[in-house]
Amino acid sequence: MKPTHIEHIGIAVENLDEQIKYYEDILGLKCYNIEEVADQKVRTAFFKVGDTKIELLEATSPESAVAKFIEKKGQGVHHIAYAVDSVQRALDAAASHGVQLIDKAPRKGAEGLNIAFLHPKSTFGVLTEVCEQPK
Amino acid sequence: MKPTHIEHIGIAVENLDEQIKYYEDILGLKCYNIEEVADQKVRTAFFKVGDTKIELLEATSPESAVAKFIEKKGQGVHHIAYAVDSVQRALDAAASHGVQLIDKAPRKGAEGLNIAFLHPKSTFGVLTEVCEQPK
Repeated sequence: MKPTHIEHIGIAVENLDEQIKYYEDILGLKCYNIEEVADQKVRTAFFKVGDTKIELLEATSPESAVAKFIEKKGQGVHHIAYAVDSVQRALDAAASHGVQLIDKAPRKGAEGLNIAFLHPKSTFGVLTEVCEQPK
Repeated sequence: MKPTHIEHIGIAVENLDEQIKYYEDILGLKCYNIEEVADQKVRTAFFKVGDTKIELLEATSPESAVAKFIEKKGQGVHHIAYAVDSVQRALDAAASHGVQLIDKAPRKGAEGLNIAFLHPKSTFGVLTEVCEQPK
């Protein structure tokens, strides 16, 4: 799929406001966007660092995948998102190698990107997202 | 500490050769370096993607922190490393904010970088490394 860069690193957090303060005051990054993604039942905060972003994810419902992740593994890195030219082509290529997909076609994610997830069972425990800027 | 970019994402793996194949064949990245870091009891493989690297970490001893991580949490993202101008200044700044440090001074890491780790207890479950190119 030849990703151009890591679009973002998603981090599951219990308290978004507390962690925004940590990323700003300790790491010296600047939160430039806070957005709720109703579809994924999360509230997100974004920080740019080089050509990558840190995306903090706070669950807005106990049914959110992020809430379940924290229950099972604790707070921490939730997923890695690779920027690709075409999400659909990346999914098709991964599937042709036997990779299990969470999404068979792109859907809308935060910041208006087209996104899809590969299943962590096929990616050695790393929940992996592919995303593209809409054309 | 104002990092310039994410230097690398460290991923704990059980079988380095199997996962190199996954990152090359499925994700389309190219492994450009395999290196043993005796100090950390790991064998590492590096892939460049944008201005960041993926660093796969395979334990070379059951006493390795990576082996213990996999035992506790399974394979997956182990740490995030931020590139900074000065590791020592970054450590001092973090400590002044009450952040617990694993390393109080820089030491040598993979690829000849000067590195140090902050304690995940102070970084909300994300093991955090700071690193610099030696002067």
